[in-house]
Amino acid sequence: MSEIWLTNAWYVAGWDAEVDSKPLARTICGVPMLFYRKLDRGVVAMRDACPHRMLPLSLGLREGDSIRCKYHGLKLGPDGVAQEMPIRTDPVNRKVCAETYVTHERHRFVWVWVGEAALADPALIPDLWPCSSPDWAFDGGYYPVACDYRLMIDNLMDLTHETYVHTGSIGQPELMEAPIETVVENDEVLVRRWMPGIDAPPFWRGALGQEGLVDRWQICRFMLPSAVMIDVGVAPVGAGATLERHDQGVRGMVIDVMTPERATSHHYFWGMARNFQVQDPGFTARFKHQQSGVFIEDVAVLEAQQRSIAANPDLKLSAYRIDEGGVRARQAIDRAIRDSKQVQGGAA
Amino acid sequence: MSEIWLTNAWYVAGWDAEVDSKPLARTICGVPMLFYRKLDRGVVAMRDACPHRMLPLSLGLREGDSIRCKYHGLKLGPDGVAQEMPIRTDPVNRKVCAETYVTHERHRFVWVWVGEAALADPALIPDLWPCSSPDWAFDGGYYPVACDYRLMIDNLMDLTHETYVHTGSIGQPELMEAPIETVVENDEVLVRRWMPGIDAPPFWRGALGQEGLVDRWQICRFMLPSAVMIDVGVAPVGAGATLERHDQGVRGMVIDVMTPERATSHHYFWGMARNFQVQDPGFTARFKHQQSGVFIEDVAVLEAQQRSIAANPDLKLSAYRIDEGGVRARQAIDRAIRDSKQVQGGAA
Amino acid sequence: MSEIWLTNAWYVAGWDAEVDSKPLARTICGVPMLFYRKLDRGVVAMRDACPHRMLPLSLGLREGDSIRCKYHGLKLGPDGVAQEMPIRTDPVNRKVCAETYVTHERHRFVWVWVGEAALADPALIPDLWPCSSPDWAFDGGYYPVACDYRLMIDNLMDLTHETYVHTGSIGQPELMEAPIETVVENDEVLVRRWMPGIDAPPFWRGALGQEGLVDRWQICRFMLPSAVMIDVGVAPVGAGATLERHDQGVRGMVIDVMTPERATSHHYFWGMARNFQVQDPGFTARFKHQQSGVFIEDVAVLEAQQRSIAANPDLKLSAYRIDEGGVRARQAIDRAIRDSKQVQGGAA
Repeated sequence: MSEIWLTNAWYVAGWDAEVDSKPLARTICGVPMLFYRKLDRGVVAMRDACPHRMLPLSLGLREGDSIRCKYHGLKLGPDGVAQEMPIRTDPVNRKVCAETYVTHERHRFVWVWVGEAALADPALIPDLWPCSSPDWAFDGGYYPVACDYRLMIDNLMDLTHETYVHTGSIGQPELMEAPIETVVENDEVLVRRWMPGIDAPPFWRGALGQEGLVDRWQICRFMLPSAVMIDVGVAPVGAGATLERHDQGVRGMVIDVMTPERATSHHYFWGMARNFQVQDPGFTARFKHQQSGVFIEDVAVLEAQQRSIAANPDLKLSAYRIDEGGVRARQAIDRAIRDSKQVQGGAA
Repeated sequence: MSEIWLTNAWYVAGWDAEVDSKPLARTICGVPMLFYRKLDRGVVAMRDACPHRMLPLSLGLREGDSIRCKYHGLKLGPDGVAQEMPIRTDPVNRKVCAETYVTHERHRFVWVWVGEAALADPALIPDLWPCSSPDWAFDGGYYPVACDYRLMIDNLMDLTHETYVHTGSIGQPELMEAPIETVVENDEVLVRRWMPGIDAPPFWRGALGQEGLVDRWQICRFMLPSAVMIDVGVAPVGAGATLERHDQGVRGMVIDVMTPERATSHHYFWGMARNFQVQDPGFTARFKHQQSGVFIEDVAVLEAQQRSIAANPDLKLSAYRIDEGGVRARQAIDRAIRDSKQVQGGAA
Repeated sequence: MSEIWLTNAWYVAGWDAEVDSKPLARTICGVPMLFYRKLDRGVVAMRDACPHRMLPLSLGLREGDSIRCKYHGLKLGPDGVAQEMPIRTDPVNRKVCAETYVTHERHRFVWVWVGEAALADPALIPDLWPCSSPDWAFDGGYYPVACDYRLMIDNLMDLTHETYVHTGSIGQPELMEAPIETVVENDEVLVRRWMPGIDAPPFWRGALGQEGLVDRWQICRFMLPSAVMIDVGVAPVGAGATLERHDQGVRGMVIDVMTPERATSHHYFWGMARNFQVQDPGFTARFKHQQSGVFIEDVAVLEAQQRSIAANPDLKLSAYRIDEGGVRARQAIDRAIRDSKQVQGGAA
């Protein structure tokens, strides 16, 4: 199986705020695309190459809901179909068009459907509800990363790396002593760690606003095609929190979405939602700033890993017990790719 | 047909002023060459690799009409043949030589013959007469461009791009409303636009030095292997100017010569001659400065186009009505390549 | 024969002072390696990729004689074998290991054995005795060079290049008039030049500390797999010096060791030992500074040569009389590669 990402799936094209009337150029799953908003704020996604002479349309001029190529002025509507030829008085050939892609906005992200448009069902968008819940505060950022998007999934599905990669920031050796369990639920993979009756670390003690022992959890959830949502938090001992239900204390939801750009590069969207101090924008800003520093440490490590993979073609990645989450996530991707092909094969 | 440029043809190696006693290194049609002037000002063109250890000879030392390699001192005459071995007292082996190429100076350019030396006939040099006519003023410049030289030909053979690429400089929407005709004359391709009885735009009104309606023309002429000369100007209505003959008013001749460097890069030589205010060097300098700003806009667009072609391997360039000039020019190139092969095939 | 360097051979990994407790990353013969010293100052050489997820181990943390990966904390001993798994409480799987390489320190260099460990015999290390002799003063430096290591051998085995490459520094035309002889002694190649009864050049007159005619020598000695040691000096006429034995006067030994990095890049270690003014560290420092300027001239020429080889795929390097030393050295390398294969073939 040479494919490394799923088609017929929703991928994040950008943060909602990144996409505006000015075109945004971004290559998604190997395809150069541009994204812009219409007057009604709806998002257009189009192949970033003029059907005439292939100049990137993202260099073009926006007119109403249309885009006009910067080279010879071919004007395309938001459906990608020609509205004016390079010579304005020429009859319009409506067969002239750029490929367009289905988009959907949800949970603060602009999603683009990579695959057959007829299959684009918004119900398939990963449920990143904490990004848009009114009861939660949320913000995040973006990094382009020069590695296979699956290396980032591996990274996120095994938090033992925090001790070494994030030594100076969030790393805590005691995390590694708590047992983890890996659970596959349909297409999702969960890596769970339950730490009952421990002293709350300073950050969580402050969030909780009280002293005393706590139950603590970390639950990494992989969702197809390539998101990881990490449920973290603490609740006072005896409040009744469990691995399955834990709304008694304070919670954070780390959001990570990886969109393949090409085989060895991806777009990394990260952020964190929380259900405490939700009215404090200063907290939100400070927290985003801190996260940007933590995640750039991952970027440095993963890009070095990718270069090492290229420089040592005789070696292979190994998987130990701690990697089970990443292994299961990759299996879920491969299984979905295989299933997707069988559906197509059966339909043919 | 995988060849994209004609062999057995003259290509511009450089502006006359670029080539001097100090060697100029430039790759022409994939071949690294160096160029220098002898004491009699004649131009030597030689493979830019020492026949001994392949160090570029352009790094070498000039001695009289010869060049001495900077590595071990092998000295080659202007005919490329060894004159001194690395050890000066060693007998000279005259089989040691670097390939040389026929050159010819004409119309302010140094031309080099790419192909079989015996076929190098200066009569085949494209007739860029305005560059060297005593009745015309001329100057120009040079840009290296990271795209297939044919993309520049396409660009020049369709001036509708001026409206969009040169919006802030020379673009004028009204140009696009005048009808064009494309004519193939032997190996030349002409794209002609005749605009009778119009108001002269400011530049041309100033050049003409009088008010009143004018007849205006734009004639793009493609010449093998890769030059485009654009005849532009205006004449007072009633002065008798026609598309074929128009010496009654004021004329400019835009000169563009594209020399392939490699498959996706070329050397771009540009300039403009005029038959008015020819004694005004300040005009010449200001005009060259303005042109340098206009042509760099083309360079930016064409390099983006080339990158887009690489990034969208599943797409192809299309050709509309306005592209007929470029299409015909590419056909002329392909036909000449084919003819050149048949001649060689017949001789074999 | 597509191999261009010998395996089952010692290569210089670095100067003794370059390798310390902090890991040094260096690719040797195509293999990324890291080097560090243990507490007993012994040198560890290990594949620079963690056996777990291939992050370069050179980014890791040193602990005692071990190294801990910066990603998930896998700890490997100096034998490359796992000592702690990413989760410290997990049982250690001693099959988890990084490849290690035999090292040996001699003559101020750290050597690494590239090939089958069982064959690593320190007696095979090239005898660069002047670097570590108590009667000689020595210092040197390092340059990474973007060319095939054999181009540097060619360069060093033919000193006629000094006249042209080092025109402003050590080049002397008279050198080229003395006859040279090339001698192959087992695996070594010698290029010898004997200049009896000449005026000593200023440098050597100063070193000798007396006036009068001298006998002068230059002997380039190639040693497998890729070292060149150049014996230079003068002795007073009549003191009895010969090409074979010449301890009567003053001598310098130029040391050059080339370690392949990849096919078209290598690590260049250079220096000079002398048997005069050996107690003058200022002389040593000034001389190293001068040499660094001379050798960077070679680097510039050789990297241009390598680029020219790539840009002129239809041409080949030629060999004249002066190149006999380089030709013989390359033959010695090819012969050793061939012999090495036959041994392996016979053993199979």
